[in-house]
Amino acid sequence: MKNRKIILKKRPVGMPLPSDFSNEEELMPVNREGEILLKSVYVSVDPYLRGKMNGTHPPIFELNESVASKIIAEIVESNNDNYKKGDFVSGYLDWKMYQTSDGKTLQKLDANAAPLRAYLGVLGITGLSAYIALMDIGKPKTGETLVVSGAAGAVGTIVGQIGKIMGCRVIGIAGTDEKVALLKSKFGFDEAINYKTAPDIKAAIATLCPSGVDIYFDNVGGTISDAVIANLNEYGRVPVCGSISNYNDVEEKTGPSLLPLVVYKFLTIQGFIIGDHVARFPEVTTQLAEWLKEGKLTYSETILEGFDKLPEAFIGLFEGRNEGKMIVKI
Amino acid sequence: MKNRKIILKKRPVGMPLPSDFSNEEELMPVNREGEILLKSVYVSVDPYLRGKMNGTHPPIFELNESVASKIIAEIVESNNDNYKKGDFVSGYLDWKMYQTSDGKTLQKLDANAAPLRAYLGVLGITGLSAYIALMDIGKPKTGETLVVSGAAGAVGTIVGQIGKIMGCRVIGIAGTDEKVALLKSKFGFDEAINYKTAPDIKAAIATLCPSGVDIYFDNVGGTISDAVIANLNEYGRVPVCGSISNYNDVEEKTGPSLLPLVVYKFLTIQGFIIGDHVARFPEVTTQLAEWLKEGKLTYSETILEGFDKLPEAFIGLFEGRNEGKMIVKI
Repeated sequence: MKNRKIILKKRPVGMPLPSDFSNEEELMPVNREGEILLKSVYVSVDPYLRGKMNGTHPPIFELNESVASKIIAEIVESNNDNYKKGDFVSGYLDWKMYQTSDGKTLQKLDANAAPLRAYLGVLGITGLSAYIALMDIGKPKTGETLVVSGAAGAVGTIVGQIGKIMGCRVIGIAGTDEKVALLKSKFGFDEAINYKTAPDIKAAIATLCPSGVDIYFDNVGGTISDAVIANLNEYGRVPVCGSISNYNDVEEKTGPSLLPLVVYKFLTIQGFIIGDHVARFPEVTTQLAEWLKEGKLTYSETILEGFDKLPEAFIGLFEGRNEGKMIVKI
Repeated sequence: MKNRKIILKKRPVGMPLPSDFSNEEELMPVNREGEILLKSVYVSVDPYLRGKMNGTHPPIFELNESVASKIIAEIVESNNDNYKKGDFVSGYLDWKMYQTSDGKTLQKLDANAAPLRAYLGVLGITGLSAYIALMDIGKPKTGETLVVSGAAGAVGTIVGQIGKIMGCRVIGIAGTDEKVALLKSKFGFDEAINYKTAPDIKAAIATLCPSGVDIYFDNVGGTISDAVIANLNEYGRVPVCGSISNYNDVEEKTGPSLLPLVVYKFLTIQGFIIGDHVARFPEVTTQLAEWLKEGKLTYSETILEGFDKLPEAFIGLFEGRNEGKMIVKI
């Protein structure tokens, strides 16, 4: 039996292309003493991987080496006393059908507490990022107005729901009428805007936010963000969690200068990295799982099936093809 | 005897002009029961007043009414038991030779503890802003690199010196070779750049900051800020205390999009308003006075003499005519 892997063939320039990746065969790995043999089950594909492909988000991927991301795997063979065959684990693993690990950086998953895939989304880095960035930087208070861009994405849907739990009026921005409808019907957003059809996003935000915007949770950057930031109230907070509109830029983008607004309105604009908050993961995961159980939090996934769908799923992120968390089922 | 006042005649469009102001006579004020009659001694002129002239920085000045700012005044007549003739006070007062007050919002000054004018600068809002914005948002640590724009201004010179006290490497940006020399010789900056003659500010910063920039204290906005922000390290902090390059803009300025950098480098960009920190004024003033006495802190002033110099002094702020705090001696 041969193993399979997806390698980075070329560093993407602009929009990533299928030809930047290659689906290759290799020898099956040897499961040494102390190791476990893993079979990939669910693979998380995420916008931040784009930066690892061309060096803006270190550590970067080497050319002709396997891409890597958060993966849920089944243990199919164990030479390690800490793990037994049939257990499920998650970790930052290679885009391979099979791989070995010493298990040191893996987390064991409880398949009974929640569906396995939830550990890639609402109970994984996605939910943790949404919660911690909104709470720490956004500091939502009852009666405030929260605007979320990339609202129908994995982080955005969770941010909006936590905003509602915190008592905010929540407005989402997304790119199709279907997503806009879903934000209101499934995720409880008060209002949502289709930025592709709104003639004037700045005016649309002003209309939907008669008391102005207190928190702007930014997943996208670019002109959408400029339009929301122009509507911020004094002391507005901007957790910046992603900038998907810029990840594929070849040249530096320009926009309205933010600094005068920062001065006049005493704004806080802050980037967020989940790695700084590892100590709080257990506490936050418990809170998210509780809200899930109580039905206060729901989530959606877009699942593509088949190992060879990995590049397509990744590219699809930048085409807005996902609703919620994008996952490939192997 | 007639009183004199400087009123706002027109709302400035772009650069303020002498014709936006008018020097007028009026009747002397009547000093009623419970009031004190004040004679202006030193008047602080500050860039933020520009925003009050055209409405971007409320409360705004009314047309044909007196401009107002922080003023040190002598009590020339008292009908109020809390104040006696000959005392000096500071407060937010009108640009008038004489005015009355009920004394409620005035501070008594100790003319023996420090020169009176220091209460408009290093021991006033200027020093308080420099200290609190640098400490709270900048969070300077020993060995870090701090870059200050508008470095030869009132806030900038104090920020740089506090940065040195905190153990930072400090680089200043100013607009003349004289200011650059003074930053190094008088204020102890490690290096300074003349942004008007540097062929490439971004490259100059990179050369002078081989370990990158950890804190950028921004007084100016615009292209200078873009050049420094491009050199920020991960977790960089940007206290935004002023945006003098933009105060006279008629049209919205554009520049490189900051949000992608905020995401990739986990930056914090935060506006600052001194009014939020009133409770800490006594403690911070004590610290600044101590540093002054120990010779760790020095300051400079540009003093114009004569009541009618007020508009000229204000306009001079935007022409870089001041070194340190701009004050008009009446």
